[in-house]
Amino acid sequence: MAVSLRDARTIIEKALEKGRALDLNPLSVVVLDAGGHVQAFEREDGAAPGRFSIAHGKAYGAVMLGMAGSAQMARAEAQGYFMAAVNGVFGGQVIPVPGGVLVRDDAGVVIGAVGVTGDTSDNDAIAALFGIEAAGLAGEI
Amino acid sequence: MAVSLRDARTIIEKALEKGRALDLNPLSVVVLDAGGHVQAFEREDGAAPGRFSIAHGKAYGAVMLGMAGSAQMARAEAQGYFMAAVNGVFGGQVIPVPGGVLVRDDAGVVIGAVGVTGDTSDNDAIAALFGIEAAGLAGEI
Amino acid sequence: MAVSLRDARTIIEKALEKGRALDLNPLSVVVLDAGGHVQAFEREDGAAPGRFSIAHGKAYGAVMLGMAGSAQMARAEAQGYFMAAVNGVFGGQVIPVPGGVLVRDDAGVVIGAVGVTGDTSDNDAIAALFGIEAAGLAGEI
Amino acid sequence: MAVSLRDARTIIEKALEKGRALDLNPLSVVVLDAGGHVQAFEREDGAAPGRFSIAHGKAYGAVMLGMAGSAQMARAEAQGYFMAAVNGVFGGQVIPVPGGVLVRDDAGVVIGAVGVTGDTSDNDAIAALFGIEAAGLAGEI
Repeated sequence: MAVSLRDARTIIEKALEKGRALDLNPLSVVVLDAGGHVQAFEREDGAAPGRFSIAHGKAYGAVMLGMAGSAQMARAEAQGYFMAAVNGVFGGQVIPVPGGVLVRDDAGVVIGAVGVTGDTSDNDAIAALFGIEAAGLAGEI
Repeated sequence: MAVSLRDARTIIEKALEKGRALDLNPLSVVVLDAGGHVQAFEREDGAAPGRFSIAHGKAYGAVMLGMAGSAQMARAEAQGYFMAAVNGVFGGQVIPVPGGVLVRDDAGVVIGAVGVTGDTSDNDAIAALFGIEAAGLAGEI
Repeated sequence: MAVSLRDARTIIEKALEKGRALDLNPLSVVVLDAGGHVQAFEREDGAAPGRFSIAHGKAYGAVMLGMAGSAQMARAEAQGYFMAAVNGVFGGQVIPVPGGVLVRDDAGVVIGAVGVTGDTSDNDAIAALFGIEAAGLAGEI
Repeated sequence: MAVSLRDARTIIEKALEKGRALDLNPLSVVVLDAGGHVQAFEREDGAAPGRFSIAHGKAYGAVMLGMAGSAQMARAEAQGYFMAAVNGVFGGQVIPVPGGVLVRDDAGVVIGAVGVTGDTSDNDAIAALFGIEAAGLAGEI
């Protein structure tokens, strides 16, 4: 099972909808597949130009390590040099904070990840999770 | 003037629609802003995982150099080492072939670029241009 | 709206003038556009050779994140591994301290950033802000 | 002897003036010191956002190799793999075409280089040389 483009569209549309409902800052949302490759992305008007890279970094770390953003943050706070070393092997492409949310299928297999950025890390994660669940999938923040 | 997220969505939707109408291979479409930063992207189901990077490279070179994909290809064929060197200064992020289409406003100012990949370069460019014009903008292939 | 070359020249001239008036060390001043691309730069005689990269890093982080240098520094002090990870996704090009000053238009939209380096970070920011305001624009330090 | 900021300003001002007199496309002009470090830069309104990198690459190769752009181009055409290898050791930062102009002092010592981009390589070199000579220095195109 994979995140289809149809699923990715729903995730992005609903994550952005949640951002508007909560009156968050302009959000950027990326959906990656099970290999960590970009499926779809949208950046709201008014978001800073570099937001693709931040959203991507959150989701990419989640897929590549099989660890959601919250778990990565806990590890970074407990053992900073480990996450720095992880970033070394992944070319600096990992942003280890909430807003990187794993997507799992019914069997619990990771089929992708969503990265949201623009507001606080916790709000970013709320928007991502809302989108994932709206697509009928299970998210791990 | 800038490519809004609304415009970007139209461009992607219509470029993919054109791909289906022409029975092209699965397409991937990226829209970049005037600074070469990602606004929106979609990869159709069945497209290879690396297609974001190809689509991005076509559009990125177009924005950064102010040259559409066809002009970049002509330069690459006439003076290959020049385009290789250009790729050096841009971190290897430039794909100098058709399918990287400049988007201009009414005054002719470049406000972004669209990158399409998946079929032949010429078909990619046709799909990109169709999307751009459907959004009421002018494209240069 | 964009920072024109004329604006950029005024910003640099006046920032350097402020540096001389306050008897600061030799300054270097860069002006970036809304996409984080270099518009203009000057390095005063006597400044160290690497000052372009420092000035650029201050302004680049400000544009790409939509956060001025002071806000970046606060985040770096609160959550150092986050700003380190941010630097990873931006190729190590972000210097998160004061002296990276956002430039906004009348509607509050970020239209570029100025990076100043050579003296203390706080004095660098004062010089940058002076230049921005002399050009009739609003700065956020 | 070194290229002072005053000299660099004259070089840029006069190179741009020449571009306007010859009705060239919008130009970008960088001045590097004898160590290959940026002294000053200006990008005219309407130039593509990536022009700093191209101008820099022309001037950087000239300083680092002690070879002007024309000589680099001749070498690239005669022995392409050599200039490709050169780009390897210099991190891809060399653009080996005219428009990278060496600046020499009275004794013939290289004290910097000017990089111009925006029009044809030959016109870029003409504008650079005009600026260098207007500053009372000798250029080698």
